[in-house]
Amino acid sequence: MADKLISAEEVVKHNTPDSCWVVLYGHVYDVTDFLSSHPGGSKVILQLAGRDATEEYDPIHPPGTLEENLKPEAKLGKIDPQTLVNTTKPAAKEERKPEEEPPLESLLNLDEIEELAHKKIPQKAWAYYYSSSDDKFSKGYNNQVYRNILLRPRVFLDCTKCDSSTTLLGHKVGLPLFVAPAAMARLGHPDGEAGIARAASKFGAMQIISNNASMTPEQIVADAQPGQVFGWQLYVQNDRKKSEAMLARINKMSDKFKFICLTLDAPVPGKRELDEKQNFLNATPVAAAAKTADEPSRPGGGGVGQQLFWGTAADLTWKITLPWLAKHTKLPIVLKGLQTHEDAYIAAKYAPQVKAVILSNHGGRALDTAPPAIHTLLEIRKYCPEVLDKIEVWVDGGIKRGTDIVKALCLGAKGVGVGRAALFGLGAGGQQGVERTFEILKGEMETCMRLLGAPDVSALGPRNINTRMVERDIYDGEAGLDRDGLWEPKAKL
Amino acid sequence: MADKLISAEEVVKHNTPDSCWVVLYGHVYDVTDFLSSHPGGSKVILQLAGRDATEEYDPIHPPGTLEENLKPEAKLGKIDPQTLVNTTKPAAKEERKPEEEPPLESLLNLDEIEELAHKKIPQKAWAYYYSSSDDKFSKGYNNQVYRNILLRPRVFLDCTKCDSSTTLLGHKVGLPLFVAPAAMARLGHPDGEAGIARAASKFGAMQIISNNASMTPEQIVADAQPGQVFGWQLYVQNDRKKSEAMLARINKMSDKFKFICLTLDAPVPGKRELDEKQNFLNATPVAAAAKTADEPSRPGGGGVGQQLFWGTAADLTWKITLPWLAKHTKLPIVLKGLQTHEDAYIAAKYAPQVKAVILSNHGGRALDTAPPAIHTLLEIRKYCPEVLDKIEVWVDGGIKRGTDIVKALCLGAKGVGVGRAALFGLGAGGQQGVERTFEILKGEMETCMRLLGAPDVSALGPRNINTRMVERDIYDGEAGLDRDGLWEPKAKL
Amino acid sequence: MADKLISAEEVVKHNTPDSCWVVLYGHVYDVTDFLSSHPGGSKVILQLAGRDATEEYDPIHPPGTLEENLKPEAKLGKIDPQTLVNTTKPAAKEERKPEEEPPLESLLNLDEIEELAHKKIPQKAWAYYYSSSDDKFSKGYNNQVYRNILLRPRVFLDCTKCDSSTTLLGHKVGLPLFVAPAAMARLGHPDGEAGIARAASKFGAMQIISNNASMTPEQIVADAQPGQVFGWQLYVQNDRKKSEAMLARINKMSDKFKFICLTLDAPVPGKRELDEKQNFLNATPVAAAAKTADEPSRPGGGGVGQQLFWGTAADLTWKITLPWLAKHTKLPIVLKGLQTHEDAYIAAKYAPQVKAVILSNHGGRALDTAPPAIHTLLEIRKYCPEVLDKIEVWVDGGIKRGTDIVKALCLGAKGVGVGRAALFGLGAGGQQGVERTFEILKGEMETCMRLLGAPDVSALGPRNINTRMVERDIYDGEAGLDRDGLWEPKAKL
Amino acid sequence: MADKLISAEEVVKHNTPDSCWVVLYGHVYDVTDFLSSHPGGSKVILQLAGRDATEEYDPIHPPGTLEENLKPEAKLGKIDPQTLVNTTKPAAKEERKPEEEPPLESLLNLDEIEELAHKKIPQKAWAYYYSSSDDKFSKGYNNQVYRNILLRPRVFLDCTKCDSSTTLLGHKVGLPLFVAPAAMARLGHPDGEAGIARAASKFGAMQIISNNASMTPEQIVADAQPGQVFGWQLYVQNDRKKSEAMLARINKMSDKFKFICLTLDAPVPGKRELDEKQNFLNATPVAAAAKTADEPSRPGGGGVGQQLFWGTAADLTWKITLPWLAKHTKLPIVLKGLQTHEDAYIAAKYAPQVKAVILSNHGGRALDTAPPAIHTLLEIRKYCPEVLDKIEVWVDGGIKRGTDIVKALCLGAKGVGVGRAALFGLGAGGQQGVERTFEILKGEMETCMRLLGAPDVSALGPRNINTRMVERDIYDGEAGLDRDGLWEPKAKL
Repeated sequence: MADKLISAEEVVKHNTPDSCWVVLYGHVYDVTDFLSSHPGGSKVILQLAGRDATEEYDPIHPPGTLEENLKPEAKLGKIDPQTLVNTTKPAAKEERKPEEEPPLESLLNLDEIEELAHKKIPQKAWAYYYSSSDDKFSKGYNNQVYRNILLRPRVFLDCTKCDSSTTLLGHKVGLPLFVAPAAMARLGHPDGEAGIARAASKFGAMQIISNNASMTPEQIVADAQPGQVFGWQLYVQNDRKKSEAMLARINKMSDKFKFICLTLDAPVPGKRELDEKQNFLNATPVAAAAKTADEPSRPGGGGVGQQLFWGTAADLTWKITLPWLAKHTKLPIVLKGLQTHEDAYIAAKYAPQVKAVILSNHGGRALDTAPPAIHTLLEIRKYCPEVLDKIEVWVDGGIKRGTDIVKALCLGAKGVGVGRAALFGLGAGGQQGVERTFEILKGEMETCMRLLGAPDVSALGPRNINTRMVERDIYDGEAGLDRDGLWEPKAKL
Repeated sequence: MADKLISAEEVVKHNTPDSCWVVLYGHVYDVTDFLSSHPGGSKVILQLAGRDATEEYDPIHPPGTLEENLKPEAKLGKIDPQTLVNTTKPAAKEERKPEEEPPLESLLNLDEIEELAHKKIPQKAWAYYYSSSDDKFSKGYNNQVYRNILLRPRVFLDCTKCDSSTTLLGHKVGLPLFVAPAAMARLGHPDGEAGIARAASKFGAMQIISNNASMTPEQIVADAQPGQVFGWQLYVQNDRKKSEAMLARINKMSDKFKFICLTLDAPVPGKRELDEKQNFLNATPVAAAAKTADEPSRPGGGGVGQQLFWGTAADLTWKITLPWLAKHTKLPIVLKGLQTHEDAYIAAKYAPQVKAVILSNHGGRALDTAPPAIHTLLEIRKYCPEVLDKIEVWVDGGIKRGTDIVKALCLGAKGVGVGRAALFGLGAGGQQGVERTFEILKGEMETCMRLLGAPDVSALGPRNINTRMVERDIYDGEAGLDRDGLWEPKAKL
Repeated sequence: MADKLISAEEVVKHNTPDSCWVVLYGHVYDVTDFLSSHPGGSKVILQLAGRDATEEYDPIHPPGTLEENLKPEAKLGKIDPQTLVNTTKPAAKEERKPEEEPPLESLLNLDEIEELAHKKIPQKAWAYYYSSSDDKFSKGYNNQVYRNILLRPRVFLDCTKCDSSTTLLGHKVGLPLFVAPAAMARLGHPDGEAGIARAASKFGAMQIISNNASMTPEQIVADAQPGQVFGWQLYVQNDRKKSEAMLARINKMSDKFKFICLTLDAPVPGKRELDEKQNFLNATPVAAAAKTADEPSRPGGGGVGQQLFWGTAADLTWKITLPWLAKHTKLPIVLKGLQTHEDAYIAAKYAPQVKAVILSNHGGRALDTAPPAIHTLLEIRKYCPEVLDKIEVWVDGGIKRGTDIVKALCLGAKGVGVGRAALFGLGAGGQQGVERTFEILKGEMETCMRLLGAPDVSALGPRNINTRMVERDIYDGEAGLDRDGLWEPKAKL
Repeated sequence: MADKLISAEEVVKHNTPDSCWVVLYGHVYDVTDFLSSHPGGSKVILQLAGRDATEEYDPIHPPGTLEENLKPEAKLGKIDPQTLVNTTKPAAKEERKPEEEPPLESLLNLDEIEELAHKKIPQKAWAYYYSSSDDKFSKGYNNQVYRNILLRPRVFLDCTKCDSSTTLLGHKVGLPLFVAPAAMARLGHPDGEAGIARAASKFGAMQIISNNASMTPEQIVADAQPGQVFGWQLYVQNDRKKSEAMLARINKMSDKFKFICLTLDAPVPGKRELDEKQNFLNATPVAAAAKTADEPSRPGGGGVGQQLFWGTAADLTWKITLPWLAKHTKLPIVLKGLQTHEDAYIAAKYAPQVKAVILSNHGGRALDTAPPAIHTLLEIRKYCPEVLDKIEVWVDGGIKRGTDIVKALCLGAKGVGVGRAALFGLGAGGQQGVERTFEILKGEMETCMRLLGAPDVSALGPRNINTRMVERDIYDGEAGLDRDGLWEPKAKL
């Protein structure tokens, strides 16, 4: 039978997963049964189904491969040489036009997603999301600092299993990755914060809703899955009643909102020049001239960022604000924006009301040349490691790779947040774009854990990384604890 | 009334701060009363006044925002759908032509001001202002060294108040920022040094007038405000009589001039190649060949910088020059151009005649690879911190951001000078350009102080910054004090 | 006779190695006998044979050179000035057309060979060979780390002799350089792995055959020379029977295969984006949609790299895998992919079954930001130098220059592997391209040894190099030995 | 008289140094007497002679300047406004055509001279001069290391006098700068090594003549000035008789040649790819194929560099070569090419025959990643500073600025050599180009010394510089002294 002549017309009909023939070295093979066990996956074979595959097959398979993997009866016969004209390769999918969008699954990393988002979202949204303060030093450094931490892969450790789930404030989450409070999601895509929530639910990921979300908290959590965890970010308003009303509203949804995230790193807005520049590019003549009589002047004119901060309180203190919060909510408090070990040390003294801190320089958006979260985490490890036992320490800023997440976990971070990455995912493809972002980071994180020999998150520790290039740059001066009295006006203590 | 149909023709008339209507989701609202309390400022609304604002409003406001902020009667009715044609957005301000100058308030940082100045001022002025010695290493390093100092923001500190005023030599100034002696202001703009003085007065800032100013001291201080502080820079001339005459002239204006600034870092001119190159680009045939018989040859031919230095004394010494000065003025002396802790240490021994030193490498214009002022300041802190108690230490060079000023203050500098920044501000827009420069730096400085939790300048200290990346590079050899005798010809001691 | 007039027509006939005349300063010389002793080689003279060479000769030879080097009778006479028209320089070899391939001997370093390979091999092969994980940090760092090690040349040491041969596992090899297991050689050139083997034999170099070679081991070693040394790389399959069958096959060729190289650094595939991207560029519509029902999904879709890893075991451990191997082969074991001193320390405890380890981050293809082999080697020297006495330590990754090889040897490496370099050599010119690669590296290595004053490989040591720029970055945390119990599931111990 | 009307026709006649009038603010001034005392030099005024100079004068002179500097009678009258048409500025020197050469005095630094040389000299010469080994790391690092040393200027030190003369081996020289032995000067310019010698004589600078000079030593020193100092570089030949003959020839000129410089850092040629590449670019078909039967093969084919090394001895040793030299010359020996403190230490033991060493990595041309001379100098200071007392230590490599020379002197170097800089100067303008090179370096060096407060070379010391950025990278391993026995074949000791 193996010598039977088979016509190309016949072969070409068998080009589906249900009946898949290929021609190799002049012989016709039925590889249908082999499809699912092909080391390279069925897709690679199906691309060649019904055709002569010798050219593609030969340079990557040593002799004998066919015989080892196919039953003898799979060899159907010889291709009739008279008929070969028909087996030429079909045209590849029509060449994608430049302006056509690439499919989300072809985007392999966060930079590619950001690039697509940049093309799709309005300039104003891009300016608001992308901008950071002054010369963007901290923004770049947030990312660079991860590049300067080396991994220490171990060998001969069974890594068949890899569990990247963990708990945050005692709640089970599918990933240590959470969505940091990032404002104005609908600027980039109509799915908005609710789209991010639906994407997060697929990965069991936690989400902190921005005080300046473009949807109401009720809308955002409407489709939440059982066990899905949210936090609510609070910017305390000068008009405290407004903040109290919002807390009361969140308290009512305490089945969804498990904590209040109080943002501390931006009591005054940072200087985000890209964002502010928008103001001058689009002004109409009437508006450019106008200002109401009783309105304070706004240096810089205010991009989206400055507008959002308007009315935010600048007079928060440990001794006044935390008791006030205790009066208005029973939810635990997470303090966001700590950038020194001293403040982490103080925060730990406020446990159990304060259950976690987020080390953050606001994505480089508040004060340029502020330290990346990794610096603060290393400071804590060096000067007051007991903080890591008393409260949870989360970080955000600069995450571009799953390996970045793993590095932060190795240093004791319990959760790792992404802000812009979620917004860029949303901008690139709505809910699906956010899902692709999570999928990439989870995949990279698990590959990293396996190669470090860590079967789960708890197995990660400082021995898995080499931080020497970073440690030589962290603060080594005197601790600033005893100066607090000096800095904080006495009357308020 | 809310269901009343209102025509677009009617709506479009209400497009001023006095009567401002907008259309949102098909309804017409009178937002006149709300203008001044809009978190985003009235300007943003006025750009949309008299029109359908839904597209701009929707993606950044969650549902319920209108109801929370407007009284029910502000909802005037429905827009008459028949009339909508007229509510399209008016053309934005006519697109600015490329060659048109941007308004000063749209320039957000010193680089943008410098860029505009570069376009506007004559090439010769640019060459003189911009140039620095040799490979411009020190000029770039002056700036880079600030980038390598990290800030340490603190949280939960009341930062509603921020006072950036201070004193210099006991005189109250609005800012720790002063104008360093920079020559030839009228090369860049006819407002000249007097324009800088008028701008400085608006911020209560101190100004040191260059020995080579393009206006007389009398002209410059003519419009000085009460309490406005000036210093006079002295380059001692070989012909001492000329210097003595100038000192006598300044002594007479001691209500304005509060000190003499003796510049020491340029006893011979540095090699400013950009400036010197000018000489070859514009020479006429006659002049290129000409030289008077008794004239010394000038290698390099001399740009503006070399011309200005002609006749400057190179034989100044601690033991001869300071007593000579004491004979000719009672004004306190500020020594400019110190670049080692050894010289700062010696200077402090000459208190109280010497009241302050300016750590400076002459903006990188004297000797390339000379250390930035921050290096010298760190040296002083390490080897002879008592200097900071005996005299005031000021710095200049490399300031591009308000955060740079704050960093110098944290290390103990009492005043921080800008030279080129004032000249570029002047070049970009005369007096108003200098004001914009001050406005930007003051704004950046105060935002930084607030985020560090410092209510005033005195609260700033070394704990607010991380200098580790810089400290590892400062001098750590033996102090050069005992070699002075060797270097300074014995006969003159 | 020296005054005889000789015509240009006569001179021009003598333009070969057998009779070579040149005209210098109007005189005709017969330089045939001098050709082989010319310091510049005969080629330089032959280019000018039969012509007036004065212009080329004059500026590089001081007067008297001719007289010193030629016998008087070599001066044949004067050129007849009437006939000079004919002695103009012939046209240089027709200018090479841009698309024309340069001769292999004109390629002077590995970058030039890589550049040519890039032009010649299919895009798919390039993507597979060139790709590395994530941001390619480790790939670049592998190379950069060698640049940061300085050499310390010694003087006044006789370096006439230089022997770069050594032994690997007791087998004599011509070079410490070996070919690391690199898969899919026929993707780049039909000579395939057998071509590499033939090239290696010319230099007495060792070759490790990839588990995923595109030829059978029997084919590859078919032309092996007596004494030529091979290793076989094993990726253990989930289906252990397959691996056992392969081991049995290799055992039969133990006259050629001297060891089993067990690769440990890639129990799961790394993320090689350039390779994975190929998948999206060439998909046909049918295949893009197709997937068999029972097939696991493949995030990233899988480039060549992912396909090759399919079915590879991820559950290898010291305690289970090494005894299993001992049952199936008597060949010594070389463990590849160690990246910490801890694992090297453990490996040494498994001597003599384990005879060597290869420090490797898989050419930066497994886990990005993993340390270069040089880091691990420095760790071993610092924390457990006894390992170097118990087993051989080989390295691979980042080799671009012969000096890189010497640096690794100075630190105690016994063998140094190249992977991509061999494949790029093959792609650039088949077997001859690989030979050129070896020739370049051997030449650079021996020049380096001579200038260090090392007559043979054993004379190289840490005093020949300055590793200070690298040492400050290596791991200095606690050793991870006591955590092994934690990481490796207890049940399997 | 000051009110007299003077016509423009009259003014325009007075446009020479002998009678120079200018118009300022409508008045005519005779500034002839002032020309030589103008701070900006006469040239600036002469460019405006006979014309209205107000526009140029005004922005850089404060009011009152004219009155202070001119006698009343210099004010000749008013310009007749009817006649002003004629005083417009004459056309600047016709715009230089792009291809036209800039005058040497307009070249302000060594980079500009190199750029011009690159344009003027043949490609082959450029390739030979510019090339260095492998990746040119050491060549770039030679220069960078000077950039990383900071200067420490001192103030209030009389710097009217500055004497940059010194002694080398006891001979008075005008500068510590010498010309290192650089071969093949006539490749770049017919002035050749003799042109360099004539230029050096104008500055009292020492010159070491290359063993491979393109002129005879007799030719080069033919025009030497009394007291002008030369050294002769020796590459020992395999045929020792040739070297001995050359030594005898030099001994006869011991009034000019004061020492023998034995080059040790290139016993085998380095790999200079730019130079070697030339070989393939110009080969004729005949020559490309040709090779005589008994000729050794030359990998790389050999650029100029490889040709020059042919026949050079590789078997020199301390114990054999120095005594051999002592037999053939009484001249002191200077050893060139030391790159470790160990070799400097050994050399010092051979004083007084060895009177100096030159720390050199052969301009980065021998072994890439070899240390710059500054590293070796810092090693000596750290591990065996007594060497600096026993013999003179000279350095070369990487000098681009006068400040570089000063930095080397501060660290104890007695002489500082330039090789390429002299050749590029020659290529740019023959003897005059070399003079311009010297003039620039001397000028930069003296400005630097003045600003450091050093009246002469002896006053320079380590306290004048900050080497911290460099010191952290120098070798800190074990000294290699006890290994010499191992490295140097025993039989030869």
